[in-house]
Amino acid sequence: MKSIFYTRFFILLPWILIVIIVIDIDTKRLSVRNTASFYLSRLGNVHGSNATSLPVIYAITPTYSRAVQKAELTRLANTFRQVPRFHWIVVEDSNSHTELVSRFLARSGLRYTHLNVFTPRRFKRTGMPRATEQRNLALGWLRGHRSVKDKGVVFFADDDNTYSLALFEEMRSTRRVSVWPVGLVGGRRYERPLVEEGKVVGWYTGWKADRPFAIDMAGFAVNLQVILSNPRALFKRRGAKPGMQESDFLKQITKVEDLEPKAKNCTQVLVWHTRTEKVNLGNEPKRQQDSVYIEV
Amino acid sequence: MKSIFYTRFFILLPWILIVIIVIDIDTKRLSVRNTASFYLSRLGNVHGSNATSLPVIYAITPTYSRAVQKAELTRLANTFRQVPRFHWIVVEDSNSHTELVSRFLARSGLRYTHLNVFTPRRFKRTGMPRATEQRNLALGWLRGHRSVKDKGVVFFADDDNTYSLALFEEMRSTRRVSVWPVGLVGGRRYERPLVEEGKVVGWYTGWKADRPFAIDMAGFAVNLQVILSNPRALFKRRGAKPGMQESDFLKQITKVEDLEPKAKNCTQVLVWHTRTEKVNLGNEPKRQQDSVYIEV
Repeated sequence: MKSIFYTRFFILLPWILIVIIVIDIDTKRLSVRNTASFYLSRLGNVHGSNATSLPVIYAITPTYSRAVQKAELTRLANTFRQVPRFHWIVVEDSNSHTELVSRFLARSGLRYTHLNVFTPRRFKRTGMPRATEQRNLALGWLRGHRSVKDKGVVFFADDDNTYSLALFEEMRSTRRVSVWPVGLVGGRRYERPLVEEGKVVGWYTGWKADRPFAIDMAGFAVNLQVILSNPRALFKRRGAKPGMQESDFLKQITKVEDLEPKAKNCTQVLVWHTRTEKVNLGNEPKRQQDSVYIEV
Repeated sequence: MKSIFYTRFFILLPWILIVIIVIDIDTKRLSVRNTASFYLSRLGNVHGSNATSLPVIYAITPTYSRAVQKAELTRLANTFRQVPRFHWIVVEDSNSHTELVSRFLARSGLRYTHLNVFTPRRFKRTGMPRATEQRNLALGWLRGHRSVKDKGVVFFADDDNTYSLALFEEMRSTRRVSVWPVGLVGGRRYERPLVEEGKVVGWYTGWKADRPFAIDMAGFAVNLQVILSNPRALFKRRGAKPGMQESDFLKQITKVEDLEPKAKNCTQVLVWHTRTEKVNLGNEPKRQQDSVYIEV
């Protein structure tokens, strides 16, 4: 009798232990995984079902070769690296990919697409809109490489502006076209859409208040599906008046009354239209004086 | 006989299973933990023994109220947030902590110390060195709050420069005083210490080449213990000539031949002396026109 008891005990005990261990693993592994994915999500490498269903933010950045170019791209990348589900579309104003930008992007740690198109010289005059060809090429790329299945938001991120991380979380929920204030623009501390009962009813601006959309390029985002379902919507070169790029583009895809106000009904500045000073290179030697070539 | 065999089998099998499961948990948990701590370390919240033994980087940033201040601090914080073991010492040129900077720092997610000291008006003239009082106050704070036990590196991070993340990993190993190139400074694409056989032997500069240390404020870092063991080393107001702040300070704590060259023997530009344009507020209304007050 005693023998049978022991036998049964030794048979049952380990099975009970196995059940306890397996339950224990499952809960612990789950919590470790949750902790990890929280930090992963802050780094932009999001795993797990919630995260992958977030719309991708496609930031379109036109850029051109100049002394401060690498510096500007460096601080932009430092910001964008902290935005989850981010895809950077960098379009160079050049006849081919430059080595500087290619190397920079490859080391950036960001998901990116590198494009280039040269702006004809006749368009490079004061008063002419800038970066038209580059933005349109990026829109063309999206139309060729993304479909109705893809969830995304498109934003025009010039390379000298300053972006808070909060801006990207605001724009991510854009259903059609969303808008928000922009700091340090139009000769004022800020410009913003005026909002009443959740609708845009006008513009607080110091400049050309009669524009249909009195907003800077950094002040709006467009759902990817709106870009795809309006395949002819582009930035205009012909007939474009100074400061009318944004209005000319937006009126092809939306109406003022349909705009979605973000940033607490357009009362927070989360992006600034900063400009970097042109660099004084007055002491740069005409011929190479240093013993090595250094990329700046 | 058959009965005994089955009994032994059922007793041994679960024990073997338990051993397999325990081994399996240990390896998996280890790898999950390693993955998590890799990402944690990139976020600056470093855990684990290796990480906590890293010297802390103390970045001293003088700042003053102006239209672009919040924008500048925003992109600085976006960069610094990715530096592990980072402590930001922000010193305002003001009679008290401003609300804007206080709120900004509290929400920054960074470890920080907020100080302020007002620069007397008589020192605010062109040609006068800037931010002397603010940098000295930060050095005083370090001397009062850190001791021989603390491992750290001190760096002067002006609020308009551009910093790559690689710069901080270069400076972290500073034993006494380290140096590296700075981009877009002195009227040239870059300035740099000239290095031969691991020693600084001169300066590549376009301006005042006879300075003992022909280097920008953004071009060097100092081990915390050097700051503590030279309690009188400060930035000078009296007798300071334009462009001599760095030399006047460095000659109190080191000699040129003792400098430690970083960034591949001073052949890489990892920091840029960018300057942000003063904002045109020509259209800003004299009296508040908007219905809400918005911080910019």
